Amino acid sequence: MQNFVFHNPTKIIFGRKTVPSVGAETAALGKKALLVYGQSSIKQSGLYDQVMSSLAEVGVTVIEHGGTRSNPLLDHVRAGIAKVKKEQVEVIVAVGGGSVIDTAKAIAAGAVVEHDVWKFFIGKKSIKAALPVLTVLTLAAAGSEMNSGMVITNQDTQEKFGFGHRLLFPKISILDPEVTFTVPPDYTAYGAVDAIAHVLEFYMTTQDTDTPVQARFIEGLILDAMESCDRCLADSNDYGGRANLMWTATLALNGLTAAGLGRVGFPMHMIEHSLSALYDVPHGAGLSVVMPGWLQWYLEQNAAPARITQLGRGILPPAEQQELAGESDTVIAERTIAFLRTWFSKVKSPVSLAELDIPAGDIPRIAENALGLAKVWRLKQYTQEVVEDILQRCA
Amino acid sequence: MQNFVFHNPTKIIFGRKTVPSVGAETAALGKKALLVYGQSSIKQSGLYDQVMSSLAEVGVTVIEHGGTRSNPLLDHVRAGIAKVKKEQVEVIVAVGGGSVIDTAKAIAAGAVVEHDVWKFFIGKKSIKAALPVLTVLTLAAAGSEMNSGMVITNQDTQEKFGFGHRLLFPKISILDPEVTFTVPPDYTAYGAVDAIAHVLEFYMTTQDTDTPVQARFIEGLILDAMESCDRCLADSNDYGGRANLMWTATLALNGLTAAGLGRVGFPMHMIEHSLSALYDVPHGAGLSVVMPGWLQWYLEQNAAPARITQLGRGILPPAEQQELAGESDTVIAERTIAFLRTWFSKVKSPVSLAELDIPAGDIPRIAENALGLAKVWRLKQYTQEVVEDILQRCA
Repeated sequence: MQNFVFHNPTKIIFGRKTVPSVGAETAALGKKALLVYGQSSIKQSGLYDQVMSSLAEVGVTVIEHGGTRSNPLLDHVRAGIAKVKKEQVEVIVAVGGGSVIDTAKAIAAGAVVEHDVWKFFIGKKSIKAALPVLTVLTLAAAGSEMNSGMVITNQDTQEKFGFGHRLLFPKISILDPEVTFTVPPDYTAYGAVDAIAHVLEFYMTTQDTDTPVQARFIEGLILDAMESCDRCLADSNDYGGRANLMWTATLALNGLTAAGLGRVGFPMHMIEHSLSALYDVPHGAGLSVVMPGWLQWYLEQNAAPARITQLGRGILPPAEQQELAGESDTVIAERTIAFLRTWFSKVKSPVSLAELDIPAGDIPRIAENALGLAKVWRLKQYTQEVVEDILQRCA
Repeated sequence: MQNFVFHNPTKIIFGRKTVPSVGAETAALGKKALLVYGQSSIKQSGLYDQVMSSLAEVGVTVIEHGGTRSNPLLDHVRAGIAKVKKEQVEVIVAVGGGSVIDTAKAIAAGAVVEHDVWKFFIGKKSIKAALPVLTVLTLAAAGSEMNSGMVITNQDTQEKFGFGHRLLFPKISILDPEVTFTVPPDYTAYGAVDAIAHVLEFYMTTQDTDTPVQARFIEGLILDAMESCDRCLADSNDYGGRANLMWTATLALNGLTAAGLGRVGFPMHMIEHSLSALYDVPHGAGLSVVMPGWLQWYLEQNAAPARITQLGRGILPPAEQQELAGESDTVIAERTIAFLRTWFSKVKSPVSLAELDIPAGDIPRIAENALGLAKVWRLKQYTQEVVEDILQRCA
């Protein structure tokens, strides 16, 4: 196990009917709030009214900042920062999924400096302070509600960049699984795919495999994501399914699954970010295209596919394990990749560029875009040629 | 899944050569420290010198409070409180295992009130403030380094009582697995047993089994504890074994394994606390006696042994699983109990009262003692008769 520091100060308030706690919790952080949210869905569902009345009850003044879209945009962040500065907002309340929460974090950091917020993303400036952020989660996916990361797309440069900082942990996150009853099947699946992608990156890219504690935790979370997603797709109002999916996605990226693994990379996310930036593909949909292709490439690169085989022993169903007894590591690894791909297809998350209507001829362009992030994320081995090679397997 | 609040603010500094960070981390919390530690072992190992010189380097004044024993005593806590009050200590530094850390927490809470600290334990007073606690962990076992609980024995009343409070989380815990190279085989095993007991209590006593996320996490941690303990016993200086055991024990009781399970109980701990209080048995040794007996009793009480069977499917080795295909739930449950008992014996942790030289004739007396805690912990179903019944299976 590698040395690590783990310090996650986010307070999670989880469960049924927890949304009305937003008022009192916000009031403890500030008297004037910027309310960040996305499209009309929270108004239709009644969540918006619930939050607004809870904030009004405790006398918190609300400045609205709606309209956050998925793959959230830098301009929208900048507009939020302008509002915070003008109105002297004290606390940011994010009501939404990862895009809304990431926007809130970027505003929280950008509002306390004079320079442009994008300088944080390109490594020209570092965060020294941030306003407090409280979240009300509406989508089980990104894990941003309990971590210090954020991802924003610069619409001018078509760059989707992300990073983390200890001052970006939300102070409080309210997770009511009932809020996600209205999430449609496609986005429910994309969320589960996202959670799987997060832990799979850690699992596959760590150089230290003497970390069985983390490996078992991750294998469990992958199965949790699949099972709970299946339940939500079968019955959108299955509370247990929604609750298990929500908590799985949060745990997948709250720092624990990676603690002790040393340096890990996000090569699959890197490639997916290009798909999102260039084609505005939903993040999870892009990930389910990239993951099997990346794993296949990894398997071909590595004479010893031991890590994928280990994953298979952790997640393949007992009957399939039995059937595979005596088979080579490569066969088990291939079955493991097929197992994931098949499940992605089953939940209708795409597994090829073609399904996203992206022609194979675009591969060089996608790879080129990915290289910008490869530099920032220090994924040096991912050259234009390598990324194209991977993308060929995703075509 | 049941509603929960999860908020664990402890900062973990984990890994090789992390002990020298104690000085700077302590200095940030206060300039005068009470150093709580146990017997001579930390002096022999050089850890004491390391901590003292790190604290001296940053100018932290140290008041010593050594001599904490396992099953730590109330009088020793009271003596520590007196020193803190007299010397106006600002921070408590615990260098030790669960007993030392629990002592430090009790001192931290007791030093800021006028009344006797035992009133917290018997529910006559509640904690409103506490001094900051920093820990340097020397034993993978109790999990106290990352939780808000503490257990202290009142030598006058022979009561071993424990409880938790959010102000008792250590601010910082330094976990260097190399520090545990010198832990002898018996205490290494008792530590692993303790970690297993913690998660097994949650697993078995939750009323909400629609919690696969927690179940898989727990099953993984049980296997992690067993495997890493085996490695440490084979080679005391196996860093990977020590690191995985240490992190397992911390994760087992940092709140995550229980979050969402609703009301859980500690019946096995309750009975073990009587063994410790009456016979000064090492905690882990008492637990390995109680666990299989309690599980056997549970199996006999419950017509549907589904939960133990589920545990078996999560932790029994694949070969044994295959062998058990088609067997009844009861058979699988019995094999699961046998699997645990056999492993406890293998690592030389006792599995019967006889091995602890406790005569079966003492059972009524042990049960009687346990009832005091049953009341405090609200384990109403555990009457004198029931506890005797369980203890008969541990004889």
